[in-house]
Amino acid sequence: MKSINLAIIGFGRIGQIHASNILTAENANLKIIIDPLIEDNAYSNQLDIKNAKGMSSLLELDNIDGVIICSPSEYHIEHIRLVSQKIKHIFCEKPLGLTIDEIMQVKSLIKTNNLNLHVGFNRRFDPDFSKLKYAISEGEIGDLHTIKITSRDPSPPPISYIKISGGMFLDMTIHDFDMVKYLADSEISEIFAKGTCFINPEIKKANDIDTAIINMKLENGVLATINNSRQAVYGYDQRIEVLGSKGSLRVNNKLLHGIQRGTKDGFVSANPQNFFIDRYKSSYEEEILNFINSIRGETVDSANVDDGLHALKSGLAAKQSLEQNLSIAS
Amino acid sequence: MKSINLAIIGFGRIGQIHASNILTAENANLKIIIDPLIEDNAYSNQLDIKNAKGMSSLLELDNIDGVIICSPSEYHIEHIRLVSQKIKHIFCEKPLGLTIDEIMQVKSLIKTNNLNLHVGFNRRFDPDFSKLKYAISEGEIGDLHTIKITSRDPSPPPISYIKISGGMFLDMTIHDFDMVKYLADSEISEIFAKGTCFINPEIKKANDIDTAIINMKLENGVLATINNSRQAVYGYDQRIEVLGSKGSLRVNNKLLHGIQRGTKDGFVSANPQNFFIDRYKSSYEEEILNFINSIRGETVDSANVDDGLHALKSGLAAKQSLEQNLSIAS
Amino acid sequence: MKSINLAIIGFGRIGQIHASNILTAENANLKIIIDPLIEDNAYSNQLDIKNAKGMSSLLELDNIDGVIICSPSEYHIEHIRLVSQKIKHIFCEKPLGLTIDEIMQVKSLIKTNNLNLHVGFNRRFDPDFSKLKYAISEGEIGDLHTIKITSRDPSPPPISYIKISGGMFLDMTIHDFDMVKYLADSEISEIFAKGTCFINPEIKKANDIDTAIINMKLENGVLATINNSRQAVYGYDQRIEVLGSKGSLRVNNKLLHGIQRGTKDGFVSANPQNFFIDRYKSSYEEEILNFINSIRGETVDSANVDDGLHALKSGLAAKQSLEQNLSIAS
Amino acid sequence: MKSINLAIIGFGRIGQIHASNILTAENANLKIIIDPLIEDNAYSNQLDIKNAKGMSSLLELDNIDGVIICSPSEYHIEHIRLVSQKIKHIFCEKPLGLTIDEIMQVKSLIKTNNLNLHVGFNRRFDPDFSKLKYAISEGEIGDLHTIKITSRDPSPPPISYIKISGGMFLDMTIHDFDMVKYLADSEISEIFAKGTCFINPEIKKANDIDTAIINMKLENGVLATINNSRQAVYGYDQRIEVLGSKGSLRVNNKLLHGIQRGTKDGFVSANPQNFFIDRYKSSYEEEILNFINSIRGETVDSANVDDGLHALKSGLAAKQSLEQNLSIAS
Repeated sequence: MKSINLAIIGFGRIGQIHASNILTAENANLKIIIDPLIEDNAYSNQLDIKNAKGMSSLLELDNIDGVIICSPSEYHIEHIRLVSQKIKHIFCEKPLGLTIDEIMQVKSLIKTNNLNLHVGFNRRFDPDFSKLKYAISEGEIGDLHTIKITSRDPSPPPISYIKISGGMFLDMTIHDFDMVKYLADSEISEIFAKGTCFINPEIKKANDIDTAIINMKLENGVLATINNSRQAVYGYDQRIEVLGSKGSLRVNNKLLHGIQRGTKDGFVSANPQNFFIDRYKSSYEEEILNFINSIRGETVDSANVDDGLHALKSGLAAKQSLEQNLSIAS
Repeated sequence: MKSINLAIIGFGRIGQIHASNILTAENANLKIIIDPLIEDNAYSNQLDIKNAKGMSSLLELDNIDGVIICSPSEYHIEHIRLVSQKIKHIFCEKPLGLTIDEIMQVKSLIKTNNLNLHVGFNRRFDPDFSKLKYAISEGEIGDLHTIKITSRDPSPPPISYIKISGGMFLDMTIHDFDMVKYLADSEISEIFAKGTCFINPEIKKANDIDTAIINMKLENGVLATINNSRQAVYGYDQRIEVLGSKGSLRVNNKLLHGIQRGTKDGFVSANPQNFFIDRYKSSYEEEILNFINSIRGETVDSANVDDGLHALKSGLAAKQSLEQNLSIAS
Repeated sequence: MKSINLAIIGFGRIGQIHASNILTAENANLKIIIDPLIEDNAYSNQLDIKNAKGMSSLLELDNIDGVIICSPSEYHIEHIRLVSQKIKHIFCEKPLGLTIDEIMQVKSLIKTNNLNLHVGFNRRFDPDFSKLKYAISEGEIGDLHTIKITSRDPSPPPISYIKISGGMFLDMTIHDFDMVKYLADSEISEIFAKGTCFINPEIKKANDIDTAIINMKLENGVLATINNSRQAVYGYDQRIEVLGSKGSLRVNNKLLHGIQRGTKDGFVSANPQNFFIDRYKSSYEEEILNFINSIRGETVDSANVDDGLHALKSGLAAKQSLEQNLSIAS
Repeated sequence: MKSINLAIIGFGRIGQIHASNILTAENANLKIIIDPLIEDNAYSNQLDIKNAKGMSSLLELDNIDGVIICSPSEYHIEHIRLVSQKIKHIFCEKPLGLTIDEIMQVKSLIKTNNLNLHVGFNRRFDPDFSKLKYAISEGEIGDLHTIKITSRDPSPPPISYIKISGGMFLDMTIHDFDMVKYLADSEISEIFAKGTCFINPEIKKANDIDTAIINMKLENGVLATINNSRQAVYGYDQRIEVLGSKGSLRVNNKLLHGIQRGTKDGFVSANPQNFFIDRYKSSYEEEILNFINSIRGETVDSANVDDGLHALKSGLAAKQSLEQNLSIAS
């Protein structure tokens, strides 16, 4: 099996997750890490891997098969452009770009340079969700009728993040929009969103919402709904239900442990795993293995530039729907 | 404890359920049953109770404390008008009337005759749903943020029924609209509905839908969603989830039995109770006891004419939303 | 359908349950209630049924088809003997007798008088347990290998009761011994019991135990275990698991309600129904309907004198095993 | 943090698991692997680690902090003796020895050489079971009364293995005996075992059983029961329930996935994880980290020689009980 050489650009929280997954992957090597603050990074210093502050160190190398871009979102397009001169296999964290124009530029780069570009919609690689997708596509529930996603964070992010995130539909729901497309194998064609601010008035001041219920119609006729909250005190709530002509499929939460306690006040089960990095641990592992396999020439399923475009368009349509109280074609 | 004398008008399926619940209630007597086809009714013939074909037999009696109206919906208003001349305690099955105008006439009758009129939104008396309401009102989950109702029938009603029912929002969702108001203690102020026909093209020919996702905003700011289907092959699906600032509450389905079978193909649990009369058996018992208690002078919670009006308005707004693809104030 | 006339002897808690179930059964009449304290019984006074203090009032009647004996256990044999002179259909509450000798006398009476005698092992008529029995006998799990019963009371009975009950194996486990035979369709041939007193030293002073684990071998080779406690603070715990060559079947507890609450401390589900009369409500209804059907001449499954004998022998063997720390043939 | 150097003796299935866990542990190095067949081992060849066929290669090294012995059971004592001349930190897979005499020799070696010897009862490190132990010791259920372990393999091992394993009580139940001691913090003092052969007559020919129910009393008075089968067609069944004066705790199975499918035939959930290496993956990781931490001088909880002795004694007592149909002091 051919050994694959990888580079990582951006060594924050997600970059470190990818690094650790590369280190345990078979026949894959992490050759270089690029980050302007790399000198202060304890984890990278501990690894026996070349560290560099600037992109030029990466571009000088001749043995890199693929690059994983985890830099801040506003640099994604610049880094894709730089890398694509030399390297064809690129994994880029979501959001691919912050505007539709940016993503169209990426599309153009892909075409020009014949890139193999993966977008980091990691939830597609969650074992339960990918089994769910497979079961739907195998016809286990007949024709798909409705999709219902409950997606709630344990607690809101810092207000400073909310101010620059693009809002809940773009920083949080974007995952759920992609999941709807992934499961239904069809794009969202129309969105109606209701949202409000219940949890923290600072969120409202930042022009954002913390609670939303979204109604969607898909190109293939399927109806979908997303139920979001930035705060579920019982923990990170990530459930999906689909209904079809022959039955239903439900993905329940992954719990912190498997102990049930019985007392005079009832039976108590565990909260869900509370942090996205724990909950979606397997998905991060699988998406990088999938990227590596694609570099080896295997045909793989992955989220691509059109998925990135779809998710961004959906988020923007939801924002517009919220503002105008209208159903918006997306 | 004072003995209460009751009459039933209309002795179809629901009338017979009410009769059987009166027979087992303490200190309550069923004195007369009015139904044009009463002579052919095996159940009424078996009971040792006065049967009559016409309303005059009821109006001649002087000892009736309360009347339960289960006649076809188009006769509700006429029967309320006739009965209210003499009897102040009236329980009327839903829908109270088929138009807003009809219900306004009932309102007027109530005022003029000082009626104690209960509307048969039986699900309010389901033990789980009434516990849920109580838990919300006691603040168990803090401030209420969202309500999510999944309400699916096991299979569609006959097309002949669909043609005259007023459509899915009026024959099926109307219960869910009432549940939203009941749980939130607030009226629905705005409705956006998406619906389609997946299950049977005959339903579409009858100008109706069989699948819908509905998005609501309430007067108190709460957001709600209803997920309807006329066909869930796994059985009658009646679940509710509410989310609040301090937690969530979920009512799960009642299952046919408590056995779980483990085989090489997984663990199999029972389907939900499959018929509304089984699933909501307790609610029918409780709503009649509640009516009897109100006749005795107790202060009780019951659905009243304004609840009937609210549910009808909600159903009509949902229809309008579906037709116009707009969010409709209700 | 022939109308069946019934008498009840003994109108304590269980007698009243049977009465109320007869009242709602179709084509069944409760003609007379015999109880020495009947004059003071509010419930019987409210019913429009003949009450009497002595057995002679019953024996004078000529239209009684069946008798239900719910008198204190020490009178069972005497009442069976008296009744059997005249009436062939007898339902007797458990324990049929307090000694093996007594039960052998009942066997003799049955033979001599050709009696149809049912013993009140009501749990056989619990819908879940009878479905479990049916599934086993239909081969759903192939050959039966093991039975595991968890049977725990919410709290101990009064010490005064423990002193006269014959001990935990006879007042509580006796139901479980019968369930083992019922499910396996085979008698227990050998018993090893470990027991101790954890909950209340008064129980030990009364020469009894409150906690036991019992190990059984059946005539057909099946292994079984019973896990008893007189106190499960989380409520009445009545679960059964069976394992066979093709799978397993589990009967879970019936819960007080179907609401699950999610908070930062986990998800809380309801306690089990806490009182045997609630938990086994359906079983009491079904066992009397079954008795009525047998009077009509239907072939029914019911617990008979040999089941009563088996359960008593099992209880006595368990006591002996506990005392001698030996495995006892039963 | 001091870097720890480790050696592995025996590179079969378990040796490879430990190796892979050492590779991902921080500041731990696997310096040498000893196995007579090491040259043919694909995994070891792939690792950049010294391989050797004989023990002398290990004993020549001066920088080894701890040794992990995964050789066949009959070599355990020999390898402990050889290693303990030079190295004080030894992790030995269970069973520590095949006879009580062998384990007593290990005890003597520990004393003489002041060894830190861990025994590989990995299940103690399962996250759920260690949480359960912690909850019991923290008094969450008050005084402990009973322990109920259900421990069933998905399918029997090869007959060839059964012939040399020492029998089900020593190859399978031994884990459960250790779990009883671990949870109760008390030794088993008395065992009564019933067992039989249901699954495969070859197992009987090999003088073994495949199904057992075991009844235990502990030194602290707690009662316990173990329910074993070599074949649960629904999968690897590893559940524990404990009952105490203030409540109960249950550890349920870990499932293969979190999807529930609803069809007209019920709701289907996943089977348990089917292989001990998957089910107890975390426990293998944790027990090696625990061993490494103990080398660093941390005070840790681990299974020691007395635990090995206890488990072996329990298994032998169960065998004797089965043969003699008596309760055996262990």
